[in-house]
Amino acid sequence: MQARQIRLANIYNAAAEIFCHKGYDATTLGEIAKAVNLTKAGLYHYFQTKEELLFSMVNYAMDLVDYHVIDPVRDIPDPRDRLRAMTANYVNLIMGNGGYLTRTIDESRRLQRTRSRRVQRRRRAFYDFVRGTIQEAKDLGALPDTNVSMATLSFFGIILYMAEWYRPTGALSRAEVAEQIVRITVDRMLLGEGRGLPHRLNFYELDKLRDARPNAAYTPHSGVRKRS
Amino acid sequence: MQARQIRLANIYNAAAEIFCHKGYDATTLGEIAKAVNLTKAGLYHYFQTKEELLFSMVNYAMDLVDYHVIDPVRDIPDPRDRLRAMTANYVNLIMGNGGYLTRTIDESRRLQRTRSRRVQRRRRAFYDFVRGTIQEAKDLGALPDTNVSMATLSFFGIILYMAEWYRPTGALSRAEVAEQIVRITVDRMLLGEGRGLPHRLNFYELDKLRDARPNAAYTPHSGVRKRS
Repeated sequence: MQARQIRLANIYNAAAEIFCHKGYDATTLGEIAKAVNLTKAGLYHYFQTKEELLFSMVNYAMDLVDYHVIDPVRDIPDPRDRLRAMTANYVNLIMGNGGYLTRTIDESRRLQRTRSRRVQRRRRAFYDFVRGTIQEAKDLGALPDTNVSMATLSFFGIILYMAEWYRPTGALSRAEVAEQIVRITVDRMLLGEGRGLPHRLNFYELDKLRDARPNAAYTPHSGVRKRS
Repeated sequence: MQARQIRLANIYNAAAEIFCHKGYDATTLGEIAKAVNLTKAGLYHYFQTKEELLFSMVNYAMDLVDYHVIDPVRDIPDPRDRLRAMTANYVNLIMGNGGYLTRTIDESRRLQRTRSRRVQRRRRAFYDFVRGTIQEAKDLGALPDTNVSMATLSFFGIILYMAEWYRPTGALSRAEVAEQIVRITVDRMLLGEGRGLPHRLNFYELDKLRDARPNAAYTPHSGVRKRS
């Protein structure tokens, strides 16, 4: 089973990268098979159609978010600490193998209607979790005169755009990028503590993630199952 | 000439909307012609290929940025006021007809290499203008311990994501959305004045823009010219 999960993760990552460079429509299953050293028949063993592959990989991407971003922070009582840890986790996922996969989620409008709706529900649950945490911070006095939905959308705008610009070969290390984005997004934009209150980041979640090897395959707990 | 510009703007806007919904690769020139009530031959009169149309419309989108976002603020001496006005202008452009066009700029990687490079240079010039203004604000004491490039990319992340989520039918009016985004992006994230210093927005640029009818056709000063 573990070997199958690793192979699937390889397929998802390769397909995501090709989709981002060539576009979903212009990519064939044959090209994806070639990129992961499978025959076309070998890939058909896992997915009968490109749309089925897309649905499965988008669910995998959302599984990664649940597993690496949300689940580890759910029980942090202070919403401000929860925001910091969640942001560090999310940024780390994007800088790891999650960047291409994250961008692929946008293609879910190409899915069949019921599948597209299912993906939308999962994205909505993630949005609601982030929005709820920001609302809790506002209830503690953060974000005066600021609309919580706008703040939440701005949060996602910053992080999702990272999937477009982040390169591992950039001038800043991964830890420095994460620290800057937490400072900009949480401490400045959401909590307004940027001035005069240099906040020492707690990187415990980030370190835990590194130990968990985010590039290794992760067994989805709610992805599609292949029809048997 | 004016009629030609209006017709071109209509083609760009219709094509951008179709590209966003169907994807660039899956869209045909025939579909675009139909959307603007032209025959296929009528559209060919303007563009021989889809790639030529894409190049022309991306340049038009960048023209809109120059004309509506950058040019009106160039001479504002205080970088903080320049940031506020520029952000209000940019948000207003995205909420107008600029949303689909902005998203289409991402497709410029499908262009021929020399054309793609030309678009990249224009995007880079815009980025450099924003980054330079943020650097000036930092020199005045804003953004302690914050990397200016990261702050600039975060700025673009928030605004570009608006093109994905903004709907004219949303709960907030256009002016309210603009005010919120300026507060979140500039006053909180970049200048850190969100707490205790409610900043009254100066909407002079926004009002000027409304008068200038951003939905009307704009004569590009650096777009492609049709080969004669």
